[in-house]
Amino acid sequence: PAPASALALLALLPPSPSRTLLCGHVSPAHADSHAALCGWLTHVRRASASTVFVTLRDISGIVQIVHTLPPPDSSDSDRAYHVALRELLLGLTQDTILRCSGTLNLRPVSSKNPQHSTGAVELHLAHLEVLNTCPSLPFSTFDPTPSSDPPDDLRLRHRHLDLRRTRVHRNLLVRSAILQSARTHLSRREQMLEIETPILVRSSPEGAREFLVPTRARARSTEQAQGQGQGQFYALAQSPQQYKQALMGAGFDRYFQVARCFRDEDGRKDRQPEFTQIDLELSFCTQPTLLHLLEGLILHVYRDVLGIPLAALYALVDSPYPVPSSLSRSLDPTTTTTTTAAAAAGKAPPFIFPVLTYAHAMALYGSDKPDTRFGMEIHRLSNESLRAAGWDLREGWVVEAFVVPSGAREVGRKDTKAWERELAEQRAGAAEVVVGVRVGEKEWEAWWKPGAESPLARLECLTPAAKAGSTRDLKLSDALKCAPGDLLAVSYRPARATGGSTTLGRARLLLATRMRRMGVPLPPPTPGVGVFGGFPRDCEVETRDGVTVRVKDGSVVLPDTAVGRGGRTLPVPHFLWVVEFPLFMPAEDEDAGAGAGGDASHGIASTHHPFTAPHPSSLHHLAPGGDPLQATALHHDLVLNGTELAGGSVRIHHAALQEHVLRSILALPPQQVESFRHLLTMLAQGCPPHGGAAVGLDRLVAEMCGEEGIRDVVAFPKVWSGKEGVMRDLSVGCPAGVEEARLEEYGVKWVGRGVGG
Amino acid sequence: PAPASALALLALLPPSPSRTLLCGHVSPAHADSHAALCGWLTHVRRASASTVFVTLRDISGIVQIVHTLPPPDSSDSDRAYHVALRELLLGLTQDTILRCSGTLNLRPVSSKNPQHSTGAVELHLAHLEVLNTCPSLPFSTFDPTPSSDPPDDLRLRHRHLDLRRTRVHRNLLVRSAILQSARTHLSRREQMLEIETPILVRSSPEGAREFLVPTRARARSTEQAQGQGQGQFYALAQSPQQYKQALMGAGFDRYFQVARCFRDEDGRKDRQPEFTQIDLELSFCTQPTLLHLLEGLILHVYRDVLGIPLAALYALVDSPYPVPSSLSRSLDPTTTTTTTAAAAAGKAPPFIFPVLTYAHAMALYGSDKPDTRFGMEIHRLSNESLRAAGWDLREGWVVEAFVVPSGAREVGRKDTKAWERELAEQRAGAAEVVVGVRVGEKEWEAWWKPGAESPLARLECLTPAAKAGSTRDLKLSDALKCAPGDLLAVSYRPARATGGSTTLGRARLLLATRMRRMGVPLPPPTPGVGVFGGFPRDCEVETRDGVTVRVKDGSVVLPDTAVGRGGRTLPVPHFLWVVEFPLFMPAEDEDAGAGAGGDASHGIASTHHPFTAPHPSSLHHLAPGGDPLQATALHHDLVLNGTELAGGSVRIHHAALQEHVLRSILALPPQQVESFRHLLTMLAQGCPPHGGAAVGLDRLVAEMCGEEGIRDVVAFPKVWSGKEGVMRDLSVGCPAGVEEARLEEYGVKWVGRGVGG
Repeated sequence: PAPASALALLALLPPSPSRTLLCGHVSPAHADSHAALCGWLTHVRRASASTVFVTLRDISGIVQIVHTLPPPDSSDSDRAYHVALRELLLGLTQDTILRCSGTLNLRPVSSKNPQHSTGAVELHLAHLEVLNTCPSLPFSTFDPTPSSDPPDDLRLRHRHLDLRRTRVHRNLLVRSAILQSARTHLSRREQMLEIETPILVRSSPEGAREFLVPTRARARSTEQAQGQGQGQFYALAQSPQQYKQALMGAGFDRYFQVARCFRDEDGRKDRQPEFTQIDLELSFCTQPTLLHLLEGLILHVYRDVLGIPLAALYALVDSPYPVPSSLSRSLDPTTTTTTTAAAAAGKAPPFIFPVLTYAHAMALYGSDKPDTRFGMEIHRLSNESLRAAGWDLREGWVVEAFVVPSGAREVGRKDTKAWERELAEQRAGAAEVVVGVRVGEKEWEAWWKPGAESPLARLECLTPAAKAGSTRDLKLSDALKCAPGDLLAVSYRPARATGGSTTLGRARLLLATRMRRMGVPLPPPTPGVGVFGGFPRDCEVETRDGVTVRVKDGSVVLPDTAVGRGGRTLPVPHFLWVVEFPLFMPAEDEDAGAGAGGDASHGIASTHHPFTAPHPSSLHHLAPGGDPLQATALHHDLVLNGTELAGGSVRIHHAALQEHVLRSILALPPQQVESFRHLLTMLAQGCPPHGGAAVGLDRLVAEMCGEEGIRDVVAFPKVWSGKEGVMRDLSVGCPAGVEEARLEEYGVKWVGRGVGG
Repeated sequence: PAPASALALLALLPPSPSRTLLCGHVSPAHADSHAALCGWLTHVRRASASTVFVTLRDISGIVQIVHTLPPPDSSDSDRAYHVALRELLLGLTQDTILRCSGTLNLRPVSSKNPQHSTGAVELHLAHLEVLNTCPSLPFSTFDPTPSSDPPDDLRLRHRHLDLRRTRVHRNLLVRSAILQSARTHLSRREQMLEIETPILVRSSPEGAREFLVPTRARARSTEQAQGQGQGQFYALAQSPQQYKQALMGAGFDRYFQVARCFRDEDGRKDRQPEFTQIDLELSFCTQPTLLHLLEGLILHVYRDVLGIPLAALYALVDSPYPVPSSLSRSLDPTTTTTTTAAAAAGKAPPFIFPVLTYAHAMALYGSDKPDTRFGMEIHRLSNESLRAAGWDLREGWVVEAFVVPSGAREVGRKDTKAWERELAEQRAGAAEVVVGVRVGEKEWEAWWKPGAESPLARLECLTPAAKAGSTRDLKLSDALKCAPGDLLAVSYRPARATGGSTTLGRARLLLATRMRRMGVPLPPPTPGVGVFGGFPRDCEVETRDGVTVRVKDGSVVLPDTAVGRGGRTLPVPHFLWVVEFPLFMPAEDEDAGAGAGGDASHGIASTHHPFTAPHPSSLHHLAPGGDPLQATALHHDLVLNGTELAGGSVRIHHAALQEHVLRSILALPPQQVESFRHLLTMLAQGCPPHGGAAVGLDRLVAEMCGEEGIRDVVAFPKVWSGKEGVMRDLSVGCPAGVEEARLEEYGVKWVGRGVGG
């Protein structure tokens, strides 16, 4: 458009685009008063030769506007204005920005719309201003109950339109409410200080790959003269870890921050290169204090934002597993959430969420972040039962299985095969094998009997017993409580679990995903076995303030007070603590990944990060001659619906022990140890005992919004472009090329990957 | 230390470092009860052969611990334990971390310490645990009233120790309180949504130099084959500007964010490469609405955090300048802070802070961020008075002067010369000259008389009148109201002010700095002339909740409720609005700097950024044939104590006008216009009118803490290392070199600056 027309358009603008009311705030109380409303045009409907209905919406809601032609006997100019206005209205496109002024009237009883809070009132249009035009859009931005999303590519390129759509729009309202709720809780109730730590930091060898930021630092002249000049780079913070520990050393006692963190990972599912975590650290704290603090935060946010009384719901969880004794320490009564009578008496009250040890989680679910929303729990086949069945088990190995009741009926032979293949592909090169057994009447009696046909023959750790068992009165089918028609998955693994999951644990998740896709219902957690076994699918619980909340078919019906979600449902969230992680793990384990310190060639890596404190009872494993792999960490993960929502630990606060871990146990080269010198100095100069945690905010919001991925709870996400090998923001088009001159300012040259080596 | 000894030390640790109370929370109510306190050892004092006093502190305060040897007739083991404990205590160094348990007792009346809230109680030590040791520190971390700071370098390298010191520690407490207060106000009272926008963004040509972040993106194969491969880079966000405008396009109505922003500038005074701003944007808003919103935020935070009732204080400001008519638009009553009776009636209530136009600020203070805390306001010498004095003024120029009462007596001849030199050096190459006139009895009558000796002869725009004035009854000394003993500064400038300051405005600030350094009191704002002229130096004002706050010698005495500052004083903050900025300025102006779009060769640049809307009455200046330099912007700055605390504007919301500004007025090359395509598309697809602002949080905190610079209100600041030409974090040592292999992953090579060109 020519500039002259732009200016002409602007000249028509009202002196001010101001509103007297928001659309959704219109109510019968405003009847007969003048109002000016601004918003997006949603529908135009020609009702008769003289009447047009328009719906206008803004963030608060939707309102009806009526335009009627004045009677033929009205003044010519008035009639002419309204005839023109009617033409204008009927030609407007969706999402045109309007300012409508006129009188608010009560609607006739017969035409009231009870679906909208504003349904009893309508604005009789006297004057209209078009504040901005809108051409035909690539997809509709207004559909309260869409059957499907527009194509991904379109949505992401036009994110400003995508964000107008009800679901995504509401997600960001919920996210904002969660942010306020969490901060208020931590700052007011827990008396924690919010302190901002740098994002431009020193590159640190302890974690995932960091983004680097070139600087314009001049090389020091002597270096340059000797041709040893080296660029100086910032790294983008992966987490505020070392800075928050320094804040404890600085005496700030309790810190929190909603921190932006950065990781340069290859496009892993459901990850963003920049993400947000609720980061916190406490001085003089014990591990139970940390758990209670996090539970207090989660309970508060669910109640405050969604109206879900988690404490009341979790009183119905009858976990068969007691709290591990390593957590039976006394609590710190100076932490507010724990100033219950029990805490004041120095005793540890029970935790709200169930607690599993790492070893138990690995045994029962084959995962350190178990998905407890369904059954198919893992059973170990004991040596005795295997021997009774005629098999010898090699020492150091265990054989495990899980049962899918009616699985053989529900999951066809083809799908079972496909699942086995998928698993084999994922786990290429790993020794463990998973066999699926479709149990029929005949198989029930026979699948486990020694012989080449038995699937057990495929497990390398088993050999038919030299002397066959005599009685065989214990059938393995009995031991597993499986019945004809069930599907069995059997596998084996080293007796000492390491890493994040076992082969059988992954098999359980893959099968569950496949069954969901097939529309096959997953078996519920097994009572007396699964952590949430026997949790009611339908019940009512009362909140502390006397409101009753209903669980219907496993989902909470959200009360009207829920931010953006009244009347909707959310599956009961499955929270779970996992504790007693191993402090270290073999470095060659491919699950080491993020957070693992150390050099693979030295054989040992931190399970989480090198600052995690050992459990006091594990100290001797760190002494010369001890086996560090036996040491337990004061680390804990909070698991939600099978994802790791939060992780934390008590930290090492003694410089000597920290240096011992870095130098002697992780065997870092001296130069890498020196890159932690500032931390070691800080620990040495009067640093209190301390510990902390980080909660993944994106994941928390996704779960509270009922979203599977985090992408639609982030305003402007980046998506993996496999072709380019980069995470890309399609809304603005970044990353992008830059002029060579700009790179020269930083003394760097782009040479392409693999060229410089 | 050998690992064995580290383990030995740990083995001595208590099972848990838990406290029963914080040190500062101890009160007479706890008398006779058992307590365990943790903290930093502050003093040890041997009081007698049997008694030792220890002071222990934590974040909450300080408490006294007493250790007494048991009587000689107590059990041998008990006595031996306490003899050893006494020896241990007397050998402890400052900042050792202790856990002290025992009984809390009331102190004898004679030894109560009224200076501390805990001064009536002491802990009788029964058991001591050393939780961490502390060697001799590079500087003391505990001195409630230090006479001077430790050396900068030491402070920054040991920031964890520096942050333990009272002043810096308290600054971060105030900062945390400001963050909570601001967010609560914006989210609860103003109903704004907090939405996080990306930090990894697309490089944009509109502002300051951005940091670049290399990615591991593969070049597209065709490009690579043609040797045209180009690296792909993210930029670090300078501000959320374009994203927040997209959020308005997405219908979020009101947004805020406490946003981290990044600028790669050479070490300018009091700047950080990463800084925090309170960022906000509103839909359907007018400029007065934005001003009121920001005033509401500032008023709330000062009252909430410091207990200062700014509204009551500012009722005492008698500004001689009325609110400019461009601001007399009606307000938006849907914005909560403005739902006063006046706003509901659609009228603009007066603003709390004084308002100046840009032209007026430049004329009166020679600055667009005037420091109004002192007088020395600038006067223009009118053509008439100059002519009467015998001078002809070249057209298009003005002659200005300011008076320092008694300045000639207070500032010596040498200092006056030094000031003139300093100014000349700063302004090398500029045509304007400032002359200082030390007015004695004789000079009073003569300084302005035409002739080579007159300092006015040095102003190129003046020539002795061909026909000397006849009467000369108007003495210029009279016109300026100066008296013998005063110091005069006279200068000239083009009649139309541009940029951030005039030569005389800079002269005023430089002289003020010099006078402060010399201990010469600055003259107060001139009544009837200065914006704060006549503001009382001593008075009492009452807050809305009936608390009386006292102003003493120009400073507010902070009430006890002030976070971290009870009993201290803070100079009355001088807030001021500046409006009616020119929308564009000549691009060669060196003040263009940050935020200026456009290419210098085309002669015109945005004063702030290219998204700022013109005042509707200025639209015709943007039409073909118009002079864009005459256009006024809907921009406003909030000035505090001579610094720009906040800036904001109504934005252009029409795609056609925005493209016109980018393409035709700023004359950006097509490729740069295309880099704004996503913004233009967003504006075209149903974007509402909108506007917003950003408040510099670091500066706000510094002013509220009474700090001159922002460095000590940032937890881990970076400082300019001139030798290297980089901003450096001395606490962790960054930026730092990285291994070549890591750069190779990003396809970049460090070649050093100037080498690649």
